[in-house]
Amino acid sequence: MALRERVAHLVGARRTQRVIVAVILVNAVTLGLETVPSVMEHSGGLLHAVDRVALGVFVTELLAKIYVQRARFVRDPWNVFDFAVVGISLVPHSGGLSVLRSLRILRALRLISMVPSLRRVVSALLGAMPGMASIAMLLALVLYVGAVMATKLFGQAEPEYFGDLGASLFTLFQVMTGESWSQVARSVMEHHPAAWIFFVVFILVCTFVVLNLFIAVVVRAMEDDDVQQTETIAAAVRQAQRDSDAALLEEIAALRTEIRALRDPRPPTEPETHSEEPVSRQP
Amino acid sequence: MALRERVAHLVGARRTQRVIVAVILVNAVTLGLETVPSVMEHSGGLLHAVDRVALGVFVTELLAKIYVQRARFVRDPWNVFDFAVVGISLVPHSGGLSVLRSLRILRALRLISMVPSLRRVVSALLGAMPGMASIAMLLALVLYVGAVMATKLFGQAEPEYFGDLGASLFTLFQVMTGESWSQVARSVMEHHPAAWIFFVVFILVCTFVVLNLFIAVVVRAMEDDDVQQTETIAAAVRQAQRDSDAALLEEIAALRTEIRALRDPRPPTEPETHSEEPVSRQP
Amino acid sequence: MALRERVAHLVGARRTQRVIVAVILVNAVTLGLETVPSVMEHSGGLLHAVDRVALGVFVTELLAKIYVQRARFVRDPWNVFDFAVVGISLVPHSGGLSVLRSLRILRALRLISMVPSLRRVVSALLGAMPGMASIAMLLALVLYVGAVMATKLFGQAEPEYFGDLGASLFTLFQVMTGESWSQVARSVMEHHPAAWIFFVVFILVCTFVVLNLFIAVVVRAMEDDDVQQTETIAAAVRQAQRDSDAALLEEIAALRTEIRALRDPRPPTEPETHSEEPVSRQP
Amino acid sequence: MALRERVAHLVGARRTQRVIVAVILVNAVTLGLETVPSVMEHSGGLLHAVDRVALGVFVTELLAKIYVQRARFVRDPWNVFDFAVVGISLVPHSGGLSVLRSLRILRALRLISMVPSLRRVVSALLGAMPGMASIAMLLALVLYVGAVMATKLFGQAEPEYFGDLGASLFTLFQVMTGESWSQVARSVMEHHPAAWIFFVVFILVCTFVVLNLFIAVVVRAMEDDDVQQTETIAAAVRQAQRDSDAALLEEIAALRTEIRALRDPRPPTEPETHSEEPVSRQP
Repeated sequence: MALRERVAHLVGARRTQRVIVAVILVNAVTLGLETVPSVMEHSGGLLHAVDRVALGVFVTELLAKIYVQRARFVRDPWNVFDFAVVGISLVPHSGGLSVLRSLRILRALRLISMVPSLRRVVSALLGAMPGMASIAMLLALVLYVGAVMATKLFGQAEPEYFGDLGASLFTLFQVMTGESWSQVARSVMEHHPAAWIFFVVFILVCTFVVLNLFIAVVVRAMEDDDVQQTETIAAAVRQAQRDSDAALLEEIAALRTEIRALRDPRPPTEPETHSEEPVSRQP
Repeated sequence: MALRERVAHLVGARRTQRVIVAVILVNAVTLGLETVPSVMEHSGGLLHAVDRVALGVFVTELLAKIYVQRARFVRDPWNVFDFAVVGISLVPHSGGLSVLRSLRILRALRLISMVPSLRRVVSALLGAMPGMASIAMLLALVLYVGAVMATKLFGQAEPEYFGDLGASLFTLFQVMTGESWSQVARSVMEHHPAAWIFFVVFILVCTFVVLNLFIAVVVRAMEDDDVQQTETIAAAVRQAQRDSDAALLEEIAALRTEIRALRDPRPPTEPETHSEEPVSRQP
Repeated sequence: MALRERVAHLVGARRTQRVIVAVILVNAVTLGLETVPSVMEHSGGLLHAVDRVALGVFVTELLAKIYVQRARFVRDPWNVFDFAVVGISLVPHSGGLSVLRSLRILRALRLISMVPSLRRVVSALLGAMPGMASIAMLLALVLYVGAVMATKLFGQAEPEYFGDLGASLFTLFQVMTGESWSQVARSVMEHHPAAWIFFVVFILVCTFVVLNLFIAVVVRAMEDDDVQQTETIAAAVRQAQRDSDAALLEEIAALRTEIRALRDPRPPTEPETHSEEPVSRQP
Repeated sequence: MALRERVAHLVGARRTQRVIVAVILVNAVTLGLETVPSVMEHSGGLLHAVDRVALGVFVTELLAKIYVQRARFVRDPWNVFDFAVVGISLVPHSGGLSVLRSLRILRALRLISMVPSLRRVVSALLGAMPGMASIAMLLALVLYVGAVMATKLFGQAEPEYFGDLGASLFTLFQVMTGESWSQVARSVMEHHPAAWIFFVVFILVCTFVVLNLFIAVVVRAMEDDDVQQTETIAAAVRQAQRDSDAALLEEIAALRTEIRALRDPRPPTEPETHSEEPVSRQP
């Protein structure tokens, strides 16, 4: 138990965190340098060594965290992210799987989970996602329907762009981003002169949906703001009301004192002071 | 009458709706698979069979709805949408009309009318349209004027882009989306060196109008928000006022009790308790 | 004088306005049809005749307006716009000036000044302009500085894109709209490998400035909204306050009545009216 | 000392400022004209002379400012900007350094520091930057990770686009701006059919991050607005409250006068003045 606490302390220490950030940065640079052939010739061995040390540091850190947090480890999505990103490098890959090797650079994304400001930004980004789910689904539906139609209509005329469903989906995604869509449309229109209807409608629908996706996100961001503002204003109103009430209640209390003084025929000094009091207190 | 009620119950049941959604999804997939030649060879018959069954389900559902809702059926635009989308497949088409066949995938859009979240999104999109009508009309006017001018000015030099009014409209729509406009402009400028004026002015005008279209939509969305916020704040103010009034009125009522006590010479215990009461209630 | 009033009445009548709108629309269509060779062959004479009649109608309308409004005519910018757009067609042009002929279609823009909703939209657009003047000036400055630099640096290597100041301005405008900038940059980079610095910096600066131009316009639109909202809320607060005051003042007035009743051992009717007095004085 | 004050007066005078702006404008034009070969042949000597005079004016102005402000000179970032922009022209450059010569046009940017409206706009732009730092960092990280991956995966297949880390960074920056990304992707996909995954994910991530960058800036701008609005509303509430309190306190004061009148069986003039007292003291 004492060991576990000491490890927890060590893992959570700011110095350790800084060391990890430094290792991530160094590792990102060495992975970048691995893409430069001349550097690889000179000091490829060094780069690989640094990479292995970095991997060792990451694995150690993760194991320490798992040791400390046990079941809780899995509950923090950032831990899962770190685990996945580091784990990729541990998957055994023979020479052919260059894709897995190239994924090692994903470790640099651990910066996101280590640097608080980046972490906040990404959390905010992910937080904006659910609000966009419906519109994203709608966009995917439009894309799918469009792709099936385009494959049937233009597949034979332009196999490069619309030869099969996959090609059509890719081409329509390209059209949706507005990239070289006129080139696609013009080459289709050579065979099907009425194809402009399809493209213009598709672009207008997509633009309109994306525009509204965008607006939905802005409005949502504003709403959070407005809620805060509403609370601030309501609090100010309540405070102003309370101040005013205090002043009025004091005056009324003074009145009551005077009325009581009427009832109990006067003990000479005391009521005088009472009656002056509230007047002088008025700000 | 009893039958109609039972049908209404059946059509409206959640289970039925889920079945319909499932049929839509399955049908969307089979229509997608129809575009893959190898799958068509193997099991084209199966795909067609599924398609026919799905169509049967949709037609039955629509007929049931019409039977239940009668004249009301036409009033719900979603019903009209469903009817149109399903009806397309029932139009008799000989082999030549491949366009009609390809429109069958539009049935997948029925997902929109069946899934509430998609329905809400699309309703919101359509609701944003009237606010954009004027600006869209302006944009159409600019496009038309630009196309007539471009056809007259550049039609002979660049028949591909500006040969007739249709070509010009398409080309200027392309320029409006910012797609490869420099390619169009540069090839025109080879013949008419001053053509850059036309393109730059056209792009600036369109960008400016689109920018304002966008802003109009955002501002409209905000306004709805602001109205809600204003109401929330006003309600908070009124509540604070009411609370304050209650406290003050109670105090004044207590005063009145004391004044009355002055008039009606004192029943000894009762006013004492009265006078303590409001003071202790003060928060 | 009587004639002038009758003309004013006639020009301002809704029916006249509708006729003018109809003439504009018909004229826009005939000008569009003039671009279609086959239609011109068949019925070119008719189209020209319609055009001349339309021009006659516009000129008559403008002269009538000038006769009615005299000096005031020039003060309404929409009149100046109509005058310019119609006047273009009256400039004598020999066969060579096909540009002037093609500008006749600008008359269709008179729709903007005749249709109230379009007029409002364009007024709003123009109203947004002053707020953008500073940023537009900044953008122009950046464009000019960039063009001078690019001409000096890349002019010899890429005369097509940066051969002289005009070409550079056009190319950088193109880069600013993000259109095919990579093609320009890559062909320059063949000669000047470091040219990417210029392009990346230029794009980042322009994007950033345009982004802020956009935001300035949105924020300005919101501000107008906020001012309205603030007033609505302030009015609601004042109303709530007034209602509350009325209730409290009434109570206090009632108290005063009771106190007076204490002083003047009750003359039955008179104090009653007295006690009403302050209440009725409340605004 | 007297001299320093006179120089300060001279440098700060509006007339001097206008002269400087005029010199900047003239200099910008002559530097522009230097790019036109025909003008250079005719009057190249004149242009160079004007340039040297302008430089002389700028240097004199800066020296005068330094003389007047001494250590304070460095504290104003606009001074540093002016100093850098003018200083570039003073760096000795042999014929080969045409880059330095071309940077002379940067002097035209001094307009920004001289024209107040431009200065405000740029200050606002720079003020928006810190709020974007985190998202810009995230974007840079995504770009770097993407570039390392792309170099490893596609470097051999497409050396032009992804040959080394620099090329990949440039290409992915291009993809990020949405420029001709389909051309890049399609040529890569000829060798690596699955490359579409990389491009689609990269574009979606970048679009999403940029969208949120944008929204962050808009929301920040709104917040400043909202704070102002909140204050305006709170002030209105407080004023309404004060007005109401004044009215109520006056009524209560009047009540007190009446109660006192009950106690002291009426000495006719004195209590009148007493009763006015608290009312007049109220602010």
